Amino acid sequence: MKTIALQTLPSGAGAAKRLAARLELACDEIALHRFPDGELRVTVAPAADTTILYAPLDQPNDKLIALLFAAEALRRGGARRLVLVAPYLCYMRQDIAFRPGEAISQRAMGTLLATLVDRVITVDAHLHRTPDIMSVFAGIEAENLSAMPAIADALAAGGVDPATVVIGPDAESEPWVRDLAARLGLQHTVARKTRHGDRSVEIDFADPALLSGRPALMVDDIVSSGTTLMVAARALRAIGATAVDAIVTHALFPAAMVAAFIDAGIRSVRSTDSVPHPTNAITLEETLAAALWSERSATHSLETTR
Amino acid sequence: MKTIALQTLPSGAGAAKRLAARLELACDEIALHRFPDGELRVTVAPAADTTILYAPLDQPNDKLIALLFAAEALRRGGARRLVLVAPYLCYMRQDIAFRPGEAISQRAMGTLLATLVDRVITVDAHLHRTPDIMSVFAGIEAENLSAMPAIADALAAGGVDPATVVIGPDAESEPWVRDLAARLGLQHTVARKTRHGDRSVEIDFADPALLSGRPALMVDDIVSSGTTLMVAARALRAIGATAVDAIVTHALFPAAMVAAFIDAGIRSVRSTDSVPHPTNAITLEETLAAALWSERSATHSLETTR
Repeated sequence: MKTIALQTLPSGAGAAKRLAARLELACDEIALHRFPDGELRVTVAPAADTTILYAPLDQPNDKLIALLFAAEALRRGGARRLVLVAPYLCYMRQDIAFRPGEAISQRAMGTLLATLVDRVITVDAHLHRTPDIMSVFAGIEAENLSAMPAIADALAAGGVDPATVVIGPDAESEPWVRDLAARLGLQHTVARKTRHGDRSVEIDFADPALLSGRPALMVDDIVSSGTTLMVAARALRAIGATAVDAIVTHALFPAAMVAAFIDAGIRSVRSTDSVPHPTNAITLEETLAAALWSERSATHSLETTR
Repeated sequence: MKTIALQTLPSGAGAAKRLAARLELACDEIALHRFPDGELRVTVAPAADTTILYAPLDQPNDKLIALLFAAEALRRGGARRLVLVAPYLCYMRQDIAFRPGEAISQRAMGTLLATLVDRVITVDAHLHRTPDIMSVFAGIEAENLSAMPAIADALAAGGVDPATVVIGPDAESEPWVRDLAARLGLQHTVARKTRHGDRSVEIDFADPALLSGRPALMVDDIVSSGTTLMVAARALRAIGATAVDAIVTHALFPAAMVAAFIDAGIRSVRSTDSVPHPTNAITLEETLAAALWSERSATHSLETTR
């Protein structure tokens, strides 16, 4: 019988332990030591035949290097199958060279990870021009799960005003905004977004009358600089939305930015636990566990060994 | 006729431009943009058939990711041969698993770089148990050059007291310490070093009488925490060395540490320009240029294109 266990980068320990408990798997934390010169020493727990590596890849560069080293140690330690669970997957947005000479970081990062692991599982990957997650990770298994079922369940449990309109920030958000609205029985619309720089965007709505006098629930996959969310909230307030709440799958913004969101007229910001963040309110535990059950069959859980 | 040019990570620009000028090559700086979420955007100049990538790999994790992306952009842009000049090569010290589960970062890093480039040139790589640099970079060309000729030339030009004893910090420094002493016609000896942690070492000398009443010139390949240098300087002062100077190939310590070195009784600290540092006093330009002349034949210099 093959063994299976989960190991996590330290920053993902909270969510990883909940996921491991649901899957009835041992969960060990990978130890990272930073030397004075900026190098990392990575120490893994004993490898199971199938080792699930849990890694939220926000602020990604150090973590990608840590994964490179962890994979080396686990393979040498006997892991025959490595499954990377990266609930937030970095570097998905640079999917073409926007200007001559620009690296396509999505491609380089995908190629690197495909040499390290056998399967990648992520959630709401920001795939814009790339047709699907399989083309990012050529030659290995890859799945891009949707956070919308987990978000809909959490919202429904809390109760939602049926007059609420679900709002997407741009045309590419339409599929998941439509999906969430349908799950909750709400109307939806998407804004037109024009980006001028990292922290400069314009937002407007095709049908402002739809939103007047009703609560708005903004949904975005990634909030990073926070600019889109704040500009959109101001636009929604200006056209008469009675309240603006925000739900985000991947909260990459600094925790202190929540005060600026409130100043911009946002009543609440909630995120999934794909990235550890003070706004975390929705767990992806069930979503990820469902995708990992197939790994559990034909294996047995490795007891925690240290 | 094939083209050849040099591109450098921003932190290496000073030394890279001097090297390129000596080789009569165009030198472009790779542009790095850091997004608010910690991701990098890497933009390279147009690729030459042979592109030399200059990268001092101190504080390495961000730079390794930048190289991953730069190599992607250069290959896609038509580079047929990539030559990495990393005067300081990171992650050479973790060459075995000292404890169970530890990643062998030297091996993982070597495997990564070997997928990106065709040749690696470095200087005074810290190869302890690894027999030679070729075994770090399986399947590609790799050379580990010595900084001792450049250091000896610089010291000889400044004049050296013939009573000076060249000091190595530990047994493994013996070969290069002997080499430097022979080039300068000086005596040499190496200390016995016992390391208890990142910042805790013990140093003693087999023949203290040799050092009494004479100037000491300490030579080390890497100075990182600075502990070894300071402990050795105090030991040398205690056994009667009249002056203690230090030469280091790779200066990885914080610039502010120079004051602590002076407090420890060190008169001067000089480093090569392998890593940009206020103590840089010895250029590796000639050492690196000699290894790169072979790339120049059968190619012609690409003019700077921007």
